[in-house]
Amino acid sequence: MGNKVTDLGEVKLIERIERSLGCSSEVILGIGDDAAIIKHTKNKHLLFCSDMLIEDVHFSRKNASASQIGKKALAVNISDIAAMGGVPRFCVVSLGLPKNTTVNFIDKFYKGLNNLAKKFNVFIVGGDTNRSNKLIVDVALIGEVNKRNVVKRKGARDGDVVFVTGRLGGSASKKHLDFLPRIKESKLLVKNFRINSMIDISDGLAIDLCRILKASAVGALIYEELIPLSKGVKSVKNALYDGEDFELLFTMSAREADKLIKNKRKLFGVNISKIGYIRKERQVLCLIDKKGREEIIKKKGFSHF
Amino acid sequence: MGNKVTDLGEVKLIERIERSLGCSSEVILGIGDDAAIIKHTKNKHLLFCSDMLIEDVHFSRKNASASQIGKKALAVNISDIAAMGGVPRFCVVSLGLPKNTTVNFIDKFYKGLNNLAKKFNVFIVGGDTNRSNKLIVDVALIGEVNKRNVVKRKGARDGDVVFVTGRLGGSASKKHLDFLPRIKESKLLVKNFRINSMIDISDGLAIDLCRILKASAVGALIYEELIPLSKGVKSVKNALYDGEDFELLFTMSAREADKLIKNKRKLFGVNISKIGYIRKERQVLCLIDKKGREEIIKKKGFSHF
Repeated sequence: MGNKVTDLGEVKLIERIERSLGCSSEVILGIGDDAAIIKHTKNKHLLFCSDMLIEDVHFSRKNASASQIGKKALAVNISDIAAMGGVPRFCVVSLGLPKNTTVNFIDKFYKGLNNLAKKFNVFIVGGDTNRSNKLIVDVALIGEVNKRNVVKRKGARDGDVVFVTGRLGGSASKKHLDFLPRIKESKLLVKNFRINSMIDISDGLAIDLCRILKASAVGALIYEELIPLSKGVKSVKNALYDGEDFELLFTMSAREADKLIKNKRKLFGVNISKIGYIRKERQVLCLIDKKGREEIIKKKGFSHF
Repeated sequence: MGNKVTDLGEVKLIERIERSLGCSSEVILGIGDDAAIIKHTKNKHLLFCSDMLIEDVHFSRKNASASQIGKKALAVNISDIAAMGGVPRFCVVSLGLPKNTTVNFIDKFYKGLNNLAKKFNVFIVGGDTNRSNKLIVDVALIGEVNKRNVVKRKGARDGDVVFVTGRLGGSASKKHLDFLPRIKESKLLVKNFRINSMIDISDGLAIDLCRILKASAVGALIYEELIPLSKGVKSVKNALYDGEDFELLFTMSAREADKLIKNKRKLFGVNISKIGYIRKERQVLCLIDKKGREEIIKKKGFSHF
């Protein structure tokens, strides 16, 4: 066992934290998915998640405007709620602000945040402001989900078809600062189809699909030629490893998949692409390249440690 | 209007943020109290709050152990829930970790956090881990409160008696790293008495009492000789201005106050002290010193900007 978190790695670090925690009959799902699931009313569960953005780690003030930072801090959380099949409701915003932060910066930051909040019917109900060297934004978000609609990472089954919304690999061209979380698409998916597993792509198609595979104890086969690339993106590697696409990655039975493929143009305003299949036999992710060669994809992608 | 947040000050900054936000019939109380109040079930409201701790702003690793930092990050939030008359339930923990953080540090941090969580029946259900230069901990906490028991800063009335739990001014002697949030005392108070207003003392008796006065549009008269000082604290200034005592400061009618004074030894394990009165006529905080002289107390106390 390494002595530093950098030796341990992010995945093992989170597993280590998880093992130390208690459990409760009211907590349906704790650490380890896009959001926690908590018992709420007869028909609804609460969802609960948080995401921290740190200057010069997640963004730089040179490349991102105040409004974009405010927007992104909430958007990454809304994307987590979408991945569970829910809708976002209430958030708190903790800020660390450098001394030289201008009032104009704060106004624009909240303009970006509030505009997105209004668009998705989220209410900002509190928070905390602090002095800090770097700009830090932590948003914690409460969502709701109909019991029948809740989707986890765990649940992918042998023979499931793997789908992804939108196009991937556009993070390098700043798409990650201006994406719209896929709430509308998630709502349509859980309302009209039976989704077996879902995640939002935050760290790259490879690592996030591997998260579904690990949680579901299955493997997958995906086809390079089926992976939808963003405009200007030439290599499938950007889709596999770049992260921050914030598209939905999900699996459903072959029967449901047929229904989706028949109805997707009518129902959805965005691209929905079939990219491969879940396979039970080997718990690995295989990519079939354009020449038909099979390659086992490592779980690499963005990791903080 | 100043151009920097340092010119604006923390109070005006929060007011500015507040004005920019939308509102909802489900949000009973948004920004501006210890926690937000959200409609939940027939008899209960949800409470929602967050607090960020930043290395070298709120603590230094020289003076605070990993376990103390973990404990404090949750404790300050539980204290906010206590101040609303509620009980804490579920939290998420966002971390910013320097590269050289040891696994041992993480284990001890979570040991401190988990021990406190278990003591107060809080479940840690999720979070986020990130790389960062300084250690950053943001905890967001969901609590619950019986509708009948909810207490706000707003509600202090002319003639109310002002009380405080425990002893004040002990922050300099590291009490702020090892305090127990006053959930038990808050429960007993809201169960047995009608509390008109309440806050937890995070930034000093002066500034936090002024928050009650401002929210309630009243003034107060407090007596130096009635303010209970922590062991070793010699000046009332430590109680007034130091902050981080995390005791409960509350007001109740003279009639309820009599009931409390008669029963406090029987009901409570900690000191509860009457320190003064709410007065309607002047919306200021007056301190009567030991020689009977009246002094108007400025709202000074710990401010981040």
